[in-house]
Amino acid sequence: MDTFKPVPEDRFTFGLWTVGNVGRDPFGEPTRPHIPPTEIVRRLSGLGAYGVNLHDNDLVPIDASFNEKNVIVSDFKQALNDHGLCVPMATTNLFTDPVFKDGAFTSNDAAIRAYALQKTMRAIDLGVDLGAQIYVFWGGREGAEVDASKNPLDALRWFRDSLNFLTEYVKDNNYKLKFALEAKPNEPRGDIYLPSTGAMLGFISTLQDSDMVGVNPEVAHEQMTGLNFHHAVAQAWDADKLFHIDLNDQKPGRFDQDLRFGSENIKSSFFLVKLLEEVGYRGPLHFDAHCYRTEDTEGVWDFAAGCMRTYLILKEKSRQFSEDPEIQDLLTVLRQDSPSRNFPAKYSPSTASSLLENPLDRTALSKLNLSYERLDQLTVELLLGIR
Amino acid sequence: MDTFKPVPEDRFTFGLWTVGNVGRDPFGEPTRPHIPPTEIVRRLSGLGAYGVNLHDNDLVPIDASFNEKNVIVSDFKQALNDHGLCVPMATTNLFTDPVFKDGAFTSNDAAIRAYALQKTMRAIDLGVDLGAQIYVFWGGREGAEVDASKNPLDALRWFRDSLNFLTEYVKDNNYKLKFALEAKPNEPRGDIYLPSTGAMLGFISTLQDSDMVGVNPEVAHEQMTGLNFHHAVAQAWDADKLFHIDLNDQKPGRFDQDLRFGSENIKSSFFLVKLLEEVGYRGPLHFDAHCYRTEDTEGVWDFAAGCMRTYLILKEKSRQFSEDPEIQDLLTVLRQDSPSRNFPAKYSPSTASSLLENPLDRTALSKLNLSYERLDQLTVELLLGIR
Amino acid sequence: MDTFKPVPEDRFTFGLWTVGNVGRDPFGEPTRPHIPPTEIVRRLSGLGAYGVNLHDNDLVPIDASFNEKNVIVSDFKQALNDHGLCVPMATTNLFTDPVFKDGAFTSNDAAIRAYALQKTMRAIDLGVDLGAQIYVFWGGREGAEVDASKNPLDALRWFRDSLNFLTEYVKDNNYKLKFALEAKPNEPRGDIYLPSTGAMLGFISTLQDSDMVGVNPEVAHEQMTGLNFHHAVAQAWDADKLFHIDLNDQKPGRFDQDLRFGSENIKSSFFLVKLLEEVGYRGPLHFDAHCYRTEDTEGVWDFAAGCMRTYLILKEKSRQFSEDPEIQDLLTVLRQDSPSRNFPAKYSPSTASSLLENPLDRTALSKLNLSYERLDQLTVELLLGIR
Amino acid sequence: MDTFKPVPEDRFTFGLWTVGNVGRDPFGEPTRPHIPPTEIVRRLSGLGAYGVNLHDNDLVPIDASFNEKNVIVSDFKQALNDHGLCVPMATTNLFTDPVFKDGAFTSNDAAIRAYALQKTMRAIDLGVDLGAQIYVFWGGREGAEVDASKNPLDALRWFRDSLNFLTEYVKDNNYKLKFALEAKPNEPRGDIYLPSTGAMLGFISTLQDSDMVGVNPEVAHEQMTGLNFHHAVAQAWDADKLFHIDLNDQKPGRFDQDLRFGSENIKSSFFLVKLLEEVGYRGPLHFDAHCYRTEDTEGVWDFAAGCMRTYLILKEKSRQFSEDPEIQDLLTVLRQDSPSRNFPAKYSPSTASSLLENPLDRTALSKLNLSYERLDQLTVELLLGIR
Repeated sequence: MDTFKPVPEDRFTFGLWTVGNVGRDPFGEPTRPHIPPTEIVRRLSGLGAYGVNLHDNDLVPIDASFNEKNVIVSDFKQALNDHGLCVPMATTNLFTDPVFKDGAFTSNDAAIRAYALQKTMRAIDLGVDLGAQIYVFWGGREGAEVDASKNPLDALRWFRDSLNFLTEYVKDNNYKLKFALEAKPNEPRGDIYLPSTGAMLGFISTLQDSDMVGVNPEVAHEQMTGLNFHHAVAQAWDADKLFHIDLNDQKPGRFDQDLRFGSENIKSSFFLVKLLEEVGYRGPLHFDAHCYRTEDTEGVWDFAAGCMRTYLILKEKSRQFSEDPEIQDLLTVLRQDSPSRNFPAKYSPSTASSLLENPLDRTALSKLNLSYERLDQLTVELLLGIR
Repeated sequence: MDTFKPVPEDRFTFGLWTVGNVGRDPFGEPTRPHIPPTEIVRRLSGLGAYGVNLHDNDLVPIDASFNEKNVIVSDFKQALNDHGLCVPMATTNLFTDPVFKDGAFTSNDAAIRAYALQKTMRAIDLGVDLGAQIYVFWGGREGAEVDASKNPLDALRWFRDSLNFLTEYVKDNNYKLKFALEAKPNEPRGDIYLPSTGAMLGFISTLQDSDMVGVNPEVAHEQMTGLNFHHAVAQAWDADKLFHIDLNDQKPGRFDQDLRFGSENIKSSFFLVKLLEEVGYRGPLHFDAHCYRTEDTEGVWDFAAGCMRTYLILKEKSRQFSEDPEIQDLLTVLRQDSPSRNFPAKYSPSTASSLLENPLDRTALSKLNLSYERLDQLTVELLLGIR
Repeated sequence: MDTFKPVPEDRFTFGLWTVGNVGRDPFGEPTRPHIPPTEIVRRLSGLGAYGVNLHDNDLVPIDASFNEKNVIVSDFKQALNDHGLCVPMATTNLFTDPVFKDGAFTSNDAAIRAYALQKTMRAIDLGVDLGAQIYVFWGGREGAEVDASKNPLDALRWFRDSLNFLTEYVKDNNYKLKFALEAKPNEPRGDIYLPSTGAMLGFISTLQDSDMVGVNPEVAHEQMTGLNFHHAVAQAWDADKLFHIDLNDQKPGRFDQDLRFGSENIKSSFFLVKLLEEVGYRGPLHFDAHCYRTEDTEGVWDFAAGCMRTYLILKEKSRQFSEDPEIQDLLTVLRQDSPSRNFPAKYSPSTASSLLENPLDRTALSKLNLSYERLDQLTVELLLGIR
Repeated sequence: MDTFKPVPEDRFTFGLWTVGNVGRDPFGEPTRPHIPPTEIVRRLSGLGAYGVNLHDNDLVPIDASFNEKNVIVSDFKQALNDHGLCVPMATTNLFTDPVFKDGAFTSNDAAIRAYALQKTMRAIDLGVDLGAQIYVFWGGREGAEVDASKNPLDALRWFRDSLNFLTEYVKDNNYKLKFALEAKPNEPRGDIYLPSTGAMLGFISTLQDSDMVGVNPEVAHEQMTGLNFHHAVAQAWDADKLFHIDLNDQKPGRFDQDLRFGSENIKSSFFLVKLLEEVGYRGPLHFDAHCYRTEDTEGVWDFAAGCMRTYLILKEKSRQFSEDPEIQDLLTVLRQDSPSRNFPAKYSPSTASSLLENPLDRTALSKLNLSYERLDQLTVELLLGIR
């Protein structure tokens, strides 16, 4: 029995665009053939995945006719049904077509903003039709290279207007759909607006139906700027806004790599899995990664299997961490949280004045031994399989 | 007459710790002598500054007696009075003393958290006594190198508990004081919690008295991770949370440099000044920078004068930009915002269905010429003084 | 008379691939049509450029027949002749075709390395036929995402073998051609071998015909990792290896942007121009940049004109700097270089023992005032056109 | 028996300044007491280290008298002797004292350059007296924030003059000493000259006695800019210039962290160890890291033990990799290196013309399956202890 074999209950999902990536890059032509969506469904199911996600145009070409669309969607539903896969999340492609070259919801041109809205409404309809309960917004073109061209206050206002319109649209249609906003700092734009998960959380609090809107943090997007992803996810969870998550990997300070989950930053991937498992996150675990361009189609399925397997290995490491007596002893000593430590339970004039008068001895307090080198070394050894 | 000579109405402020920086760095000893706070007041006043800001221990040593403190504060008030300077902002030093080596409000030790709270309450009293109306929180030690040591969810909860306690304290004392949270991604900690202005905005929406709490974005802190500072400030302004600002400069992807304002990134400094002037920001313009370590004390005043002068030059450039006919013509063409462009004013079932039925032509819309190369070139030439 | 109007004597060059860039990016389709090479020649000539550079396949498609190639080359030569443009530099496309997906000269497969060599020999023949005197090697695919797959020592050896073979080929054919190696840290590969100009300089010293081989530093490639480009160019000049240069602009820590020269980092662009002009660099000034994706074809020519114009403006600023009395006075004071300062002219046992016995006073020496804040402020003001 | 217990034959060394680091940082005071050098020797010996390295002033204060120095050195030698430790490497502190605030060998002031030379000669004498055979040059202050202040060509020339003088001094004294140059991109200077190991290799080829001079690559310094350290070390080895190595760890794009070896980037640390072991590097394995500031003195020894233990674990992983049949099978398939693959053994007119005429089929060559996803997944699982 293989303990690291995924099953649908693990809630692993992939995008049509991720396993379907053909290996084109800014300097090179595709290295792999297109894989039909129905074939993706069949192979993912065989690997133990739970679902498959999509942009509208991953499934239905932007210029498909009404009839073409119906055939495509019908075939796809049949494949989902045949292979027991669902579509938990859908999203809109607002970046490939040249019309979006200067933004979609934040274009200077109101007609392009209107087109982006229209395209998203239709894509929401499609997503709901396929059973999606989460709708992701990644504003890859919502940014600028030329800050002279656009006031960022206008851009924020336009983006908010669109989201407010779309939450109304969802409510008006009685769709059971939540929105998840996905941040990215740059690429394809020089700078993208609302560049981090934190910025998205701040922005959500300015929306009309903010309860319907959460975030979709992505490992690579946060690590591109060197931010600690595990901390960003914790902030989203703390704010009750972790509606979806995009798992992959990335070296900091460079182009968007979308590497296989856990392939680059083993330690930070571990803390991420540990957090997700400890807090009891129950949403989909979506791998927004793609296979190295060096691989042929078989490599794609190695890649997909590897993403899931590494997650499950790190989940098991997380369990070991929670049961390692030496690690847990160190943590118990660290946590000095009893009422005798004088932190006031709640503000009142009397707790305030008591605290002000309390002769706390900063020199004594600075002497506590923390043993973080030991704790971190034990963590590394646990990850290396030495404990 | 020198058009770029600062006057108090320009609202330029400096910190005691900024012009008072002695040039110590991680690899070297101080290169300049300590400058007494009263002397700083005198010199800043002579240069045309409006105010001086401080951490509690910039003025009063952490181990000063009650009497020593009274003498120091009294002398400082006298100097402020003599030279016509005010103290618009105060803050707490929660990072120099070894007691804070693993955090202040987010220490694992409740007694250290209590001490941080107590120290801040006293420092708030001092700040209010000196006339401060803005109180900054920079949690430089609120972070981790060893993520095994602390759950970030605990850290966020502890930080929130402290801020909620302190807003109560301020209200209970009828202080006219707003809080401004300042983010930084790392240094001195490996990773600092709530690492960007955006993350702070998200966090503020989880606070009890969130109306009293805004942000204090700092150029260098945002640029350390390569984020677009001007966009971050726009988001803060959009959320009505721009309570204070820290101006300086920084090369991305390296240690915190706190360079003279406008000395490194001329173009992005320009867009920042343009934004602040166009929206009508009326808070203090604080230079949280320090003089190169190569300089002696006279160099410090060159540095301070340079910060203000460059701001005023860029303010004038911003005015020129708004009056440059060629630039303004390009912008007018860009902005396609009339109702005829079909963006719905407001959601209703009928505006939604109209939009869905509208035969918007994405190919035609993609053809509009944007002239961003020309616009950007004109901006660069304006900055270079060629227009 | 416009003082910033380029003429061929300025030696400005562009690549067919730069002005010919169609605006495709990793997330979007082309936004501009292909421009025929002969049309590029015509337009560049009209703008005052000196030459046009190319990869073999910019001009001749990889699968062109012998006859097709002859027609294309002949038409192109005619256009060069008609419009008075030359081809100072040529290079090989070793990255677009899928055969190079895991490297060209550093592929694990000797047959692919052989193919890369063959393709380069043919492309050298073409370049020489067009008059090129400099041949650039940019090894965009010579790298790895998976370090398990390839020993970097093998990669270095294979790359050296290929270069040694090719220098022999050039000599054997009596071509007047020098090689210029161009470094890049990453993209399209996760990591590219020999990632900086400095690394290339180190590598060159291990080559057989190292006199024939220099470097082609590129602004964006060095700035992607935040390295100081002006320092890298100085090292190349110091080593007598600055054979070519690629001018553009880039924000640090992100994807390869290839922005219009001087559009982003005004100050560092100035120091670069100042260095090139002061040392008397006489090679081509090649703009390896491309136009924003938001632009149509007319924007391309705005872009090309802007690159050249900004260079000329910064050249004029460099002249001003050298004649600014206040700046020059500061520099004169700084430079303490007389023999009385005790630096030994040359090693000998006696200069060594004299130096050892010399009672140099480090405390006195540390007191010299450097006035760098003032010097830098004057530089910034000169750039802003205020002096 | 513990297989990961270090012994002197492992050649692990530490610096007095590394284990002796007192936990001061730019924002905080020391958190640990000074540890006397003789105590460091005793404890390192107990942990199984091989040697201890030093800057002149780590052992002898800059203002020690002749007699004070003699006593200190004598006591230190006694401790080395008592505990069986050696001093394989020594270096000069050219950064702490304010005299070096604008550089040592590259100061604008020839008298400061002379002082740096004198200080280094004396420190070389001390190092040789202690038995050092490697002398490291880390030019932490050799850089600039203000590029207007100094021509980088002067800086390179001055640095070269100093190194040429010092190699003469070493030869003249018949010292058995090699020089190892250590690069760093920035911090404490805004930009440091010769910022990467590659740049140092390039520079060495311009020196008079270049055979005596190699490099001392440091993990953290290369990773600060996101460069691949394992590739840089391979280049140094390829050039026969790997004279010493500094092991530690670092998150990219931020301040110099000097973390415990292997604590952050597990995968890249593995490839480094694998390279060092496979090529047969026999120089010292020096840990230029320091203990978290949160630790007391006992934490320092946990830290030192952890550095060595992780190296030995990764060394064992490297052995496993070389014997893992599944991994080795994949590598064998990848390596297509037979003569039948048509790569010419050596240049000759006939091998050149054969190659030009060879009908290599790029389409067929592009089809080879590389299985890099599988190879990388197996590597990750080996690191995680799952294989």
